[in-house]
Amino acid sequence: MTPEALTPERILEATEDVLRRYGPAKATVVDVARALGVSHGSVYRHFRTKAALREAVTSRWLERTVVELAKITNGTEHPAPVRLRFWLTTLFEAKRHKAGDDPELFATYSVLIEENSGVVEEHIRELVTQLREIIEEGVRAEQFAFMEPSVAAQAVFDATARFHDPAYAPEWRKPTIDGDFAAVADLVLRGLSA
Amino acid sequence: MTPEALTPERILEATEDVLRRYGPAKATVVDVARALGVSHGSVYRHFRTKAALREAVTSRWLERTVVELAKITNGTEHPAPVRLRFWLTTLFEAKRHKAGDDPELFATYSVLIEENSGVVEEHIRELVTQLREIIEEGVRAEQFAFMEPSVAAQAVFDATARFHDPAYAPEWRKPTIDGDFAAVADLVLRGLSA
Repeated sequence: MTPEALTPERILEATEDVLRRYGPAKATVVDVARALGVSHGSVYRHFRTKAALREAVTSRWLERTVVELAKITNGTEHPAPVRLRFWLTTLFEAKRHKAGDDPELFATYSVLIEENSGVVEEHIRELVTQLREIIEEGVRAEQFAFMEPSVAAQAVFDATARFHDPAYAPEWRKPTIDGDFAAVADLVLRGLSA
Repeated sequence: MTPEALTPERILEATEDVLRRYGPAKATVVDVARALGVSHGSVYRHFRTKAALREAVTSRWLERTVVELAKITNGTEHPAPVRLRFWLTTLFEAKRHKAGDDPELFATYSVLIEENSGVVEEHIRELVTQLREIIEEGVRAEQFAFMEPSVAAQAVFDATARFHDPAYAPEWRKPTIDGDFAAVADLVLRGLSA
């Protein structure tokens, strides 16, 4: 690969592959460079340390969900209560797919998440901000009436933790989980409603 | 100790002491017998296996909270919404005290809980049943109007997981946790209210 073609995105893609293949304990920057056919110096030119590379790949993984959810947050087609339920459902679906479709990659990222708590905190802040935006709109439209929107947003996020916190991933395969999710979503939406 | 004085409760008390002192990996039935000044055969007369003893001590630990909460569930002084909030607060307080006051014992029981999932499931069933009873009363008194009470009870339990699931114990020391709890309790109670 020519140096020009070596974009951060290419490096992060290759890093994800390498992490999946070797596991987070063994994967090295040299493995990433080898997978790309470049020197490890070329990789270090974009990510100054192995830790920075691991942090960036974690951030990228979490960001995919944020981008998907932002489409719902910024949509105007449906009223806020409908959008809020769809947002919560989409978050649960996204996390469940990540856990179920590629369990090895999920396990890998679970390790990375442990070592990059700052990235996770930022991720949660972004999600709670999106929730707040939907709730604010619902309050303006008099569909929601309750609590300060940023307090409400955090409460909705906390109340639905069982359906997005990766610590609960083993429960997401239970046959009752969809009913459980629907009941909590009903309760939360009723709690917010004007 | 005479064989007559050797009650199951005495054995379980001694087992808890031994577990705290030696840790769940090392504690043996012989240690328990020695602490009581009896033969290990005397202990086995009450608990047929080491696993049965460990299960019984786990159950006893969880049961303390259930008994405390049952007083609230069966109280008639206050209306159901007040009792429900008090019940949730007491559950959170009880778990937080167990985690904070004696971290070694909490860590010990965290290990025991992992190996006695049946006991934990029964514990959760008891808690959700208590919630259902309070909600049923609130529905009868027309203070609550929402969902089938057993569905609502499970939803309330799930929505407050962050404040009773021991997996979240590290978060219970955060300065914002009481505000976070109050907001979720408000949301849940408003969701149930008639």
